[in-house]
Amino acid sequence: MRCGAGIEARQVNELFINIDPIQAGGRLTGDAIKAIIAYGDGYSVCDNCRKPNRLDYIAKPPIVDFHKDVASWLNMDTARVVPGARRGFQAVTHTYVQKGDPVLLTSLSHYTEFLAVEGAGGVAREIPANAEHIITADATAAKIEEVQRETGKPPVLAFIDHVDYQFGNMHDVAAITKVAHQYDIPVLYNGAYTVGILPVDGKSLGADFVVGSGHKSMAAPAPSGILATTTEHAQQLFRTTTIEGDVTKRRFGIKEPEMMGCTLMGATLVGMMASFPHVKERVKHFDLELAHNKIIIDALRSIDGTKILSEYPRRHTLTRVDTTGSFDRVAETHKKRGFYLSSALADHGVTGVIPGATRIWKFNSYGTTKRQAEHLAAAFVAIADENGLRVTR
Amino acid sequence: MRCGAGIEARQVNELFINIDPIQAGGRLTGDAIKAIIAYGDGYSVCDNCRKPNRLDYIAKPPIVDFHKDVASWLNMDTARVVPGARRGFQAVTHTYVQKGDPVLLTSLSHYTEFLAVEGAGGVAREIPANAEHIITADATAAKIEEVQRETGKPPVLAFIDHVDYQFGNMHDVAAITKVAHQYDIPVLYNGAYTVGILPVDGKSLGADFVVGSGHKSMAAPAPSGILATTTEHAQQLFRTTTIEGDVTKRRFGIKEPEMMGCTLMGATLVGMMASFPHVKERVKHFDLELAHNKIIIDALRSIDGTKILSEYPRRHTLTRVDTTGSFDRVAETHKKRGFYLSSALADHGVTGVIPGATRIWKFNSYGTTKRQAEHLAAAFVAIADENGLRVTR
Repeated sequence: MRCGAGIEARQVNELFINIDPIQAGGRLTGDAIKAIIAYGDGYSVCDNCRKPNRLDYIAKPPIVDFHKDVASWLNMDTARVVPGARRGFQAVTHTYVQKGDPVLLTSLSHYTEFLAVEGAGGVAREIPANAEHIITADATAAKIEEVQRETGKPPVLAFIDHVDYQFGNMHDVAAITKVAHQYDIPVLYNGAYTVGILPVDGKSLGADFVVGSGHKSMAAPAPSGILATTTEHAQQLFRTTTIEGDVTKRRFGIKEPEMMGCTLMGATLVGMMASFPHVKERVKHFDLELAHNKIIIDALRSIDGTKILSEYPRRHTLTRVDTTGSFDRVAETHKKRGFYLSSALADHGVTGVIPGATRIWKFNSYGTTKRQAEHLAAAFVAIADENGLRVTR
Repeated sequence: MRCGAGIEARQVNELFINIDPIQAGGRLTGDAIKAIIAYGDGYSVCDNCRKPNRLDYIAKPPIVDFHKDVASWLNMDTARVVPGARRGFQAVTHTYVQKGDPVLLTSLSHYTEFLAVEGAGGVAREIPANAEHIITADATAAKIEEVQRETGKPPVLAFIDHVDYQFGNMHDVAAITKVAHQYDIPVLYNGAYTVGILPVDGKSLGADFVVGSGHKSMAAPAPSGILATTTEHAQQLFRTTTIEGDVTKRRFGIKEPEMMGCTLMGATLVGMMASFPHVKERVKHFDLELAHNKIIIDALRSIDGTKILSEYPRRHTLTRVDTTGSFDRVAETHKKRGFYLSSALADHGVTGVIPGATRIWKFNSYGTTKRQAEHLAAAFVAIADENGLRVTR
């Protein structure tokens, strides 16, 4: 079935249980799908745009309310929508980082954070994770001291991922921001894996900036995301334009240069808005998600030679697994080689594990029901059984 | 009918002939609507992302082909998709403009071009339009000389809108780029109102960069757009990342900092791709669009006191009208005041004229059939008749 010339209609979530590490939190809700049909045209949200002509002032559809709701839901003072979390990072580095400034990242930071630092001309200084792949407040303090000693100045900004993309481990942001603030370093809380997944309270985490991803964790179309901040920083980050035409003497009102004026329109924004009530509700039930994740993890751990590389017990559903001592041993002699695992999973109606991966791989069980988790657990065990791996029940 | 809590389903294009100046070229095609349903999830396009893990290398859906097709269709060497034309402007200014550098804009430039210059720390220098609201090559040369005289250096970049947003006038880009290139000034061709609307040949226009808007003129969801360039400039504009983590020594492959890695995913990108065959076809028939526009313009001109402020005959369907001497005179005494016009148009099944506007306003007839154009023409004349304005038939 095609949905355009040369474009096969995608049916991944209709035909499979999808445990893709990056897709789990971004699947659209039914309301989002209805919204993107009704508001598919980009300028659809501009039908009722009136002075002062800025996206976040539009009342119909209720974009102005959505902005206020997002800020208060995150316990921050003000929020904007952005074309993906990365564009939130970019706005912050472009405002706070000058050429040559050291910027704190971590050894688990996402590449888009590095690109945002690179774009502003900053220098990446990583806080090392400990042996358990956790970023600690002590390591943060040591890194700040090191940077200060070497460059004569403290970092101008710190990016801290509450849950990192590599292990899905949860880091103690509140303790880290406390340390950073002792050196007057503002902290960008990267909530790409948390905002829309579990409760986030920006103020009690000490975040100066909270960035979330619509398409990763808020059941919204791409590219979408949110950037929230405090009143203190909003003046600088969301400053309004000052450029003027030399001939016409035109100025451009309350448009914000870091936002490049209006940001998201049509499907991306209204999709995010339509999912928002569901997202607000689902974060309250993250304990259930962890319970379902545990069903799968326990099954994987029952397969001899399998290691969970993420912290255990799990505090997030994104999980890194090492099956070098189990599934990979089968691959050595299987006629499909490493592809047998994803192929066998597909036979069980499961997708999202990279085809060919049998050593270190990730999955995200977010959004699976208990029955689906049990099905996943049984599928892994069955595949192990079929291939002669020992399962300790 | 609602499509989410508090969100009324939009039915503007189902219930009305929509002549909104910015919406005409962005309405989704049927294929785009099918595509955004199938690919609504942001990471849907990543199902088959393999090394080197960059959006424009993905073969299924055929994103790699789309990138090549867009570049060749514009007669440029290489292209990227971006979250709106403005993000294309931003990538170019961020690469080519340093703090304090003069940048050529025009007295008709769009605010997003100014914001892109402001973001890079550039100084806006406008080429003045002539009395007919046209930007000429002579005015360009004079402005470059003026900037050079005053600042000691030529502008580092020029933004030229092929068709401007204020009058919908067409400017002689080929002649202007010829002048700019004599001073070694690269030219950004802003095709927000042309790419996807009429044939654009970047090389013969002398464009160093071609920027188009998906949601304004390519029947694509927002935010979307394209940024194309020459092989010469691609090396600099689309340079790959060089930042490195100091602890992990990580580098980030062929990700491009100006693109912030991958740009459009899911609905925005696949929507644009699904509309693309239709867009390629429709640009060949722009003469018909102008013929339909003329039907409406002739009707407006038949209403005594009405002036067409855009160049005439029209070379684009976006048109600026002055009805101070006609419809506005009615508003003085009408019980609905200025709102009578949009209200009367709505009674005729027409939307898109700003409610309350009776003096200077814009409309865009792009996409209207001949019958719809005749209906629009008749509606304006009927409203004039009903309100005692003289119509010269």
